[in-house]
Amino acid sequence: MWLNGTSDLIKLLKKKRVKRVALQFPEGLKRRSATVAAALKDAGFEVVLSGDPCYGACDLALDTLMHADVLVHFGHSPVDEQPGVIFEPYKVDFDVAVLENALPFFKKGPVGLVTTVQHVHLIPAMELFLKAQGVACRVAEGGGRTPNRGQVLGCSFTAAKATGAEEILFVGTGLFHPTGIALATHAHVIALDPLTGSAQVVSGDTLMRRRFAVMEKAGNAKSVGIIVSTKSGQQRMDLARRLASLSPDAVIVTMREVHPDELLNLGFACYVNTACPRLAYDDQERFPVPVLSPQEFEILCGARTWDTYTIDEIV
Amino acid sequence: MWLNGTSDLIKLLKKKRVKRVALQFPEGLKRRSATVAAALKDAGFEVVLSGDPCYGACDLALDTLMHADVLVHFGHSPVDEQPGVIFEPYKVDFDVAVLENALPFFKKGPVGLVTTVQHVHLIPAMELFLKAQGVACRVAEGGGRTPNRGQVLGCSFTAAKATGAEEILFVGTGLFHPTGIALATHAHVIALDPLTGSAQVVSGDTLMRRRFAVMEKAGNAKSVGIIVSTKSGQQRMDLARRLASLSPDAVIVTMREVHPDELLNLGFACYVNTACPRLAYDDQERFPVPVLSPQEFEILCGARTWDTYTIDEIV
Repeated sequence: MWLNGTSDLIKLLKKKRVKRVALQFPEGLKRRSATVAAALKDAGFEVVLSGDPCYGACDLALDTLMHADVLVHFGHSPVDEQPGVIFEPYKVDFDVAVLENALPFFKKGPVGLVTTVQHVHLIPAMELFLKAQGVACRVAEGGGRTPNRGQVLGCSFTAAKATGAEEILFVGTGLFHPTGIALATHAHVIALDPLTGSAQVVSGDTLMRRRFAVMEKAGNAKSVGIIVSTKSGQQRMDLARRLASLSPDAVIVTMREVHPDELLNLGFACYVNTACPRLAYDDQERFPVPVLSPQEFEILCGARTWDTYTIDEIV
Repeated sequence: MWLNGTSDLIKLLKKKRVKRVALQFPEGLKRRSATVAAALKDAGFEVVLSGDPCYGACDLALDTLMHADVLVHFGHSPVDEQPGVIFEPYKVDFDVAVLENALPFFKKGPVGLVTTVQHVHLIPAMELFLKAQGVACRVAEGGGRTPNRGQVLGCSFTAAKATGAEEILFVGTGLFHPTGIALATHAHVIALDPLTGSAQVVSGDTLMRRRFAVMEKAGNAKSVGIIVSTKSGQQRMDLARRLASLSPDAVIVTMREVHPDELLNLGFACYVNTACPRLAYDDQERFPVPVLSPQEFEILCGARTWDTYTIDEIV
């Protein structure tokens, strides 16, 4: 599969008359980087590999691109326009008949269907399968950070919301996306892992309870660091400036990697995260002090009401 | 001391008609950042703090400067010219009479005198003290990355070499600098810690033995990652390209932080470090595979002879 991928890529690069190629792989595919780099070197290209951690197209290795003609970013679709970047998707196939396992959880439909980037090429086949089972199905364009029909990201649930459906089927791995969809849509959400076949209903309740405990703890903080990412697709400086204006104790802090050691070294009593939204929700246990979402900080500052609590997305 | 520092800094910033100030502190001073940020905010400035790890002026927060008019970098003197950066030194005083503890280790002199940036303001007082003790003393300009007379860095021992002395007194903390001076100068090196008063002779022998063991282990590596830093003052792409040309198995890898996890994820059998030279020497125990200096890789590739083994410096 990757040899195929490389030969198509080599054709494309030759057509573009590229000489120096920068390569970037997400963490899960990084082990393949030496092999792909060797294949491109053998084909006559000068290769520079990005060795920094990468979890999405929101973190393009633009500093590596400075040493090359193009950057080939593997495994993700674009979240924003960046000149000189080629996106090489990584497709993961499965037999769409696995969707049968989700059927018992549907109510009356219609069902909104969403998935993550590595499975979006199977959206048409999944639609056909559901229709054949008598399930009315809706797939929506996400737009913006999710250019593929039916695609969601951990920071963008637009393609779920845009279905307008009261039931949503998320096909993919892990519970973060379906939890976010539940909080963003208030729909009945079914998560199906296409690789294990396990299906379950997912609600936002557990996450909400955990987050309220974090907010409670942050309530008395005497100093607040408002984190702004320096990664290409995570910079929300305008939001950070607005949040900083809500409290005299707030200071804006730029960070590349939001790391527990650095939060401790900086010494703020609490932080507000405007970088990758998942950091606050997923990594609180690793952090030495409360790390709030923008919406949670707004509630604590009296700038948002409790009943408009929602999950943070980058739009 | 820091309130004084802040009031002088505020005067300077007002004189420059600055509105937005970016602040960067090295790890050892980071805990003071919230206090300094608050003082500048009170004085009417908009403040953005860099929250990334920082170990020297070779790692300027230029991405934070993008959100401000100037960057104030605390604790280091400049290693290169960068527009918009103000360097705020951090002076650490001591009683120069502590140099008495080094006297028994001197042979016949003259003695070359060097120190690190936080003590360079005491160079004239140390010279006077040594002369009063009858010790002929030489202090040299380092130039380049070490703009202060008598200053050395962990990556630049020019001010030691330029004394031409066969005995060198290093005044400062830790054994890395004096070990590097010993390897770079072949002089008789005495290290004096001015805070504890302990003095000792330092040679490069132990480090050499450890490094030869690492080179031995790297000899059979089938794949080699040539690390290039993306930090402002550590980028040695020309050197990396030259090194990569020495072996068909070498691929250039850019990295911001050279972290053991990333070296493991990338999966190369060995690395060559052209980033901060200390990484290879100080952190080998943390690394999963051999990390060579440029000179060590040259020796293994037959492009340098063993008798010209030397410590890596950035010039």
